[in-house]
Amino acid sequence: MIIILKSGTPVEEITRISQEVSETWGVTVEKSVGTHKAVLGLIGDTTSIDKLQVQEFSPWIEQVLRVQQPFKRVSREFRHGEASEVVVPTPNGDVYFGERHPIVVVAGPCSVENEAMIVETAKRVKAAGAQFLRGGAYKPRTSPYAFQGYGESALDLLAAAREATGLGIVTELMDAADLSAVAKIADIIQIGARNMHNFSLLKKVGAQDKPVLLKRGMSATIDEWLMAAEYILASGNPNVILCERGIRTFDGKYARNTLDLSVLPVLRSLTHLPIMIDPSHGTGRSEYVPSMAMAAIAAGTDSLMIEVHPNPAKALSDGPQSLTPDKFDRLVQDMSVLGKVVDRWSTPAFGRVGESRILFTPELSK
Amino acid sequence: MIIILKSGTPVEEITRISQEVSETWGVTVEKSVGTHKAVLGLIGDTTSIDKLQVQEFSPWIEQVLRVQQPFKRVSREFRHGEASEVVVPTPNGDVYFGERHPIVVVAGPCSVENEAMIVETAKRVKAAGAQFLRGGAYKPRTSPYAFQGYGESALDLLAAAREATGLGIVTELMDAADLSAVAKIADIIQIGARNMHNFSLLKKVGAQDKPVLLKRGMSATIDEWLMAAEYILASGNPNVILCERGIRTFDGKYARNTLDLSVLPVLRSLTHLPIMIDPSHGTGRSEYVPSMAMAAIAAGTDSLMIEVHPNPAKALSDGPQSLTPDKFDRLVQDMSVLGKVVDRWSTPAFGRVGESRILFTPELSK
Amino acid sequence: MIIILKSGTPVEEITRISQEVSETWGVTVEKSVGTHKAVLGLIGDTTSIDKLQVQEFSPWIEQVLRVQQPFKRVSREFRHGEASEVVVPTPNGDVYFGERHPIVVVAGPCSVENEAMIVETAKRVKAAGAQFLRGGAYKPRTSPYAFQGYGESALDLLAAAREATGLGIVTELMDAADLSAVAKIADIIQIGARNMHNFSLLKKVGAQDKPVLLKRGMSATIDEWLMAAEYILASGNPNVILCERGIRTFDGKYARNTLDLSVLPVLRSLTHLPIMIDPSHGTGRSEYVPSMAMAAIAAGTDSLMIEVHPNPAKALSDGPQSLTPDKFDRLVQDMSVLGKVVDRWSTPAFGRVGESRILFTPELSK
Amino acid sequence: MIIILKSGTPVEEITRISQEVSETWGVTVEKSVGTHKAVLGLIGDTTSIDKLQVQEFSPWIEQVLRVQQPFKRVSREFRHGEASEVVVPTPNGDVYFGERHPIVVVAGPCSVENEAMIVETAKRVKAAGAQFLRGGAYKPRTSPYAFQGYGESALDLLAAAREATGLGIVTELMDAADLSAVAKIADIIQIGARNMHNFSLLKKVGAQDKPVLLKRGMSATIDEWLMAAEYILASGNPNVILCERGIRTFDGKYARNTLDLSVLPVLRSLTHLPIMIDPSHGTGRSEYVPSMAMAAIAAGTDSLMIEVHPNPAKALSDGPQSLTPDKFDRLVQDMSVLGKVVDRWSTPAFGRVGESRILFTPELSK
Repeated sequence: MIIILKSGTPVEEITRISQEVSETWGVTVEKSVGTHKAVLGLIGDTTSIDKLQVQEFSPWIEQVLRVQQPFKRVSREFRHGEASEVVVPTPNGDVYFGERHPIVVVAGPCSVENEAMIVETAKRVKAAGAQFLRGGAYKPRTSPYAFQGYGESALDLLAAAREATGLGIVTELMDAADLSAVAKIADIIQIGARNMHNFSLLKKVGAQDKPVLLKRGMSATIDEWLMAAEYILASGNPNVILCERGIRTFDGKYARNTLDLSVLPVLRSLTHLPIMIDPSHGTGRSEYVPSMAMAAIAAGTDSLMIEVHPNPAKALSDGPQSLTPDKFDRLVQDMSVLGKVVDRWSTPAFGRVGESRILFTPELSK
Repeated sequence: MIIILKSGTPVEEITRISQEVSETWGVTVEKSVGTHKAVLGLIGDTTSIDKLQVQEFSPWIEQVLRVQQPFKRVSREFRHGEASEVVVPTPNGDVYFGERHPIVVVAGPCSVENEAMIVETAKRVKAAGAQFLRGGAYKPRTSPYAFQGYGESALDLLAAAREATGLGIVTELMDAADLSAVAKIADIIQIGARNMHNFSLLKKVGAQDKPVLLKRGMSATIDEWLMAAEYILASGNPNVILCERGIRTFDGKYARNTLDLSVLPVLRSLTHLPIMIDPSHGTGRSEYVPSMAMAAIAAGTDSLMIEVHPNPAKALSDGPQSLTPDKFDRLVQDMSVLGKVVDRWSTPAFGRVGESRILFTPELSK
Repeated sequence: MIIILKSGTPVEEITRISQEVSETWGVTVEKSVGTHKAVLGLIGDTTSIDKLQVQEFSPWIEQVLRVQQPFKRVSREFRHGEASEVVVPTPNGDVYFGERHPIVVVAGPCSVENEAMIVETAKRVKAAGAQFLRGGAYKPRTSPYAFQGYGESALDLLAAAREATGLGIVTELMDAADLSAVAKIADIIQIGARNMHNFSLLKKVGAQDKPVLLKRGMSATIDEWLMAAEYILASGNPNVILCERGIRTFDGKYARNTLDLSVLPVLRSLTHLPIMIDPSHGTGRSEYVPSMAMAAIAAGTDSLMIEVHPNPAKALSDGPQSLTPDKFDRLVQDMSVLGKVVDRWSTPAFGRVGESRILFTPELSK
Repeated sequence: MIIILKSGTPVEEITRISQEVSETWGVTVEKSVGTHKAVLGLIGDTTSIDKLQVQEFSPWIEQVLRVQQPFKRVSREFRHGEASEVVVPTPNGDVYFGERHPIVVVAGPCSVENEAMIVETAKRVKAAGAQFLRGGAYKPRTSPYAFQGYGESALDLLAAAREATGLGIVTELMDAADLSAVAKIADIIQIGARNMHNFSLLKKVGAQDKPVLLKRGMSATIDEWLMAAEYILASGNPNVILCERGIRTFDGKYARNTLDLSVLPVLRSLTHLPIMIDPSHGTGRSEYVPSMAMAAIAAGTDSLMIEVHPNPAKALSDGPQSLTPDKFDRLVQDMSVLGKVVDRWSTPAFGRVGESRILFTPELSK
């Protein structure tokens, strides 16, 4: 259930209403203050709450609505239609993820292999235009005998790359026992597709402060994915970015997964959270990455994650889906042309999108 | 197996080689003459043919290669990498489908409902920029009690719309018994997703002259889809356009199907045939259509099929996925901006793409 | 909508009610007379029919109910819970398919290859206990270059095998043009998985008399499958057997398809039609066939279709999933032990199941 | 790579060979001693090991073979075809899981709700013939707002039920932090479908002694499932039981998941580990459970897990798929009839299967 307050409601009145609602019905109240109006979200058992009775709490209350979806805090309804933004501080400045901001580019190798390799890659992707470096210290691998990542020592190398370039760091957490080590160097903590349903881990990243990149499980429905995000928000962390990385279907012969770009309009209507697309895992083949990255931009993504490796043929993992730094450089150039057309690009991408025309007329989706 | 001939090989020599190869090994030989070189494709049991022996047939033979794929005539290898184009004569002039041509737009209602409606829709989509009108006379419906299309009388209405606007007509054939009636008015014959594996029907449209739009079966693999196209080419009709319309996955709650845009780079590398994307069936909801149409353009589609209905709420079929003419008009405007950026747009779209820069650098995919 | 008549309703009264209902509301009325009561099914637009008004037509009317499912004639509700049976005359006598009859075994090769082979196989499967011979004259093949079946001449060989053994013949129809030729020799006409959505073909087999074996499409939902059967019944042919043959899922490495045995309890509750299981196509590997055949019996199937080939290694199609006659012989022996335990076996299987205890207590499913 | 030793090889010789192989090539050597012969499995980088050189280590070596599969310790090849058994001590005696033992029945509610309920259910399922009680203390739930299990206090209630009945306890572990608490009372630790790809957790249950029940991930391929088991064995715990619980497909309208019974013959040929089938989660509806349980027995399962709740309508989770104790009682009676026919039943089921005829002739699968 949400309470929409009139424009100009005094802060003390918002506080008073929150407290009274909370005390009367034993629910948690969360405020989200947008440009024009404030919205109070009620979490807990709201089935017995009478809308009219709430309405009478204050003349500043414009409307009281029930949230129809099973997900509450992540739903767009819960913020009365307003998008949220995730702000991530990096050495180079704050980076904003969200539908009113330029597209954020995350790039780097599947796994951190050694210092020279990760620092060099960081420099190359920064020069090309990326704001974040990705790189795995802990790697979920199908086989126990496959390379499992260099763990904590790889985290140190990511820190070195961060220092050398000022890029923010995105790296995956697989085990709650590594949370403090990962959180120390990561600017964004990634939860991988295989752990999207690891509810214990979701609760733990929800109970700390670093933003979370939540990849879609390989056969997770949209509802399940949003409920996984809800676990994180319900544990206290509102900074979640949703990342589509391809789903499992009946055909994996050419593209290893099926990149589901329709999540862009679908999620946009269901949730206020920012969206990232990963065409590298999404297709599993570097030659398919450019066209899918371009498609993601045209379809309205807020961010892209692209694998880049200085020597894909010798990568310790996921070589076939990695671009070389040169190809990545040319792709970002193409992306920038398209990004400017849809008014979602800035160099460097640390600002807010201007007021110029947005190509993809938003009302069309209404 | 294919024989690549040197640039400048005389026509008589091509004919001579074809005949000799054909007589020596009992295979069928198909010529495809490109801008720079000619390629002879050998169909039949080629396992016993010795490449060196073929090489000796003529000094004009540059190279002899085996086609690795199970599909032969549709494979890109079979034309030694050269794309094909499908040319469709319409009252307004010839329309070209292919990767070196402007994007072709097909629009119209799911089914033909009455003359006023179809003619009015045709005028609107033409004014917006479409080159073809789609409309179902015969409708494959899950329920025998649902509206099955007006059949032959609907074909007459399509003819009227064609006459009124000069647009080409795309309409579905479900039953070989209706082939001559459909072929009489259709400029392109559509084989729907449910009949992609109806091999008898494929053979029949392969044995006539009208171009064929082959929709992907709802759970057809890429290989199966190309083999279905191979049935048509093997029966004698080289004019096939492949249309992705969404596949069936585990989640159909929001988007009814999962539009698989990765077919664009995948098919591009496997086949020389032109590609169309249908975001209307691909998502099943009109509000998702614009972003998927834009994505398809950015990813390199040759054509789009979009459902448009003057009054979607009252449509006899598939209303929820149809745009109104007004929304379609605005979408085409957005599409044209993007189409020009990728150098795949012309008004009217009846020419060849110029030599200006193509946004999506083709070498990236190499 | 259905009208349930009281036990003992006179035939003339049934006729009178049917006519009056039909005339009053313009619906089609279909009678199904069971052991204890008769049920009238109303097909057409029944939304405006008032149940109470129907009730007053006759004191013999016990109850008037609406059918909730989108499928009508095939739904179990439509016969007020009573199973139907499909009776197929064969030279050896009538064979009954249905949940109150012994399990019917259909066996034979994927395709008819030559007379010696098909007659020999027929003799072997008959000796082992089969009641029907299967064998393809027309074969749906992914590749146009693969063996497509010997067509009409293969039908003659099936006729010879029928004459030699007295077995009934099950063979596939792919093209309406072959219907009269196929119907002349087939005792049951098979519609294959790839044509389950070929509505034109469904209407045509619905408009003739031979029983139809309707295979489930490789990604057809239960509802779509039942609606396909509804097409046949709606066209006038009530003799349909539903055959599960494996669905397409994300894993085809070991078992080629995923045999969905849960259709047995699911279909049993939804439809009155008899059910067949095909573990050969369902798994694609002969070594998996025996355990799946046994499972199907334990789960309550009415019939089994099993591929048998005298020399699987040399089969023109589907060799890997075919049993040798020896292995089939031993499998039927095992099946008979289990079939007797569940009281669904008779030798020869041309009778009605006795009154002895049925292992799988039916009330458990309530 | 495996080394098969001749029948009668002295223990000291086995030890000597193990040590020498280990020292020469730096691999880990694992012994499995069967009835007739011993097999040494070599784990590590065996690519450079020459088979002939190994052969010369001892005249007791019968054969040296490479394991072709990506999974090593779990593969059937690794034990040269011999099945393994998992022995679980319970207050009522040791229970054996494996293809040469009677079918083991695990039953109980989805979650532990209170002491009376769990003790009563334990008594009822024991009386019906179960050897294990299942019950969730920690529940993986899609929604963070749904009942998450009573956690540690529920573990105490399971201990009470164990004490009251002597049944072994199977309960799920979701978080490594709860491992010692769970291991203290569980006789078998369950890893749920959502955590099958949680490699950190797999390693942790692999590094302790309690047997592990590994459920198949909802869209895990057979290979991925076996590799997950390999993680546990590679960490030191050989006691793993594989549990099929239904996979995610395109149709969840009636059966919530698709129970993949073909895993029985498939896994039997690939792995030596025991197999359990869970028809309750596998179908999601109690009325489908009996026929699928019977099918699993006929197809050769080693064990069954069935949800039983004293009052399904009021269950805190998964009520629709739970049988009442009465229905479970009748199902076990039916199961026992079938179990005896296939010679996989004993009352009580704590012995070894006798030498009587096995219905499902094993050679058929060869």
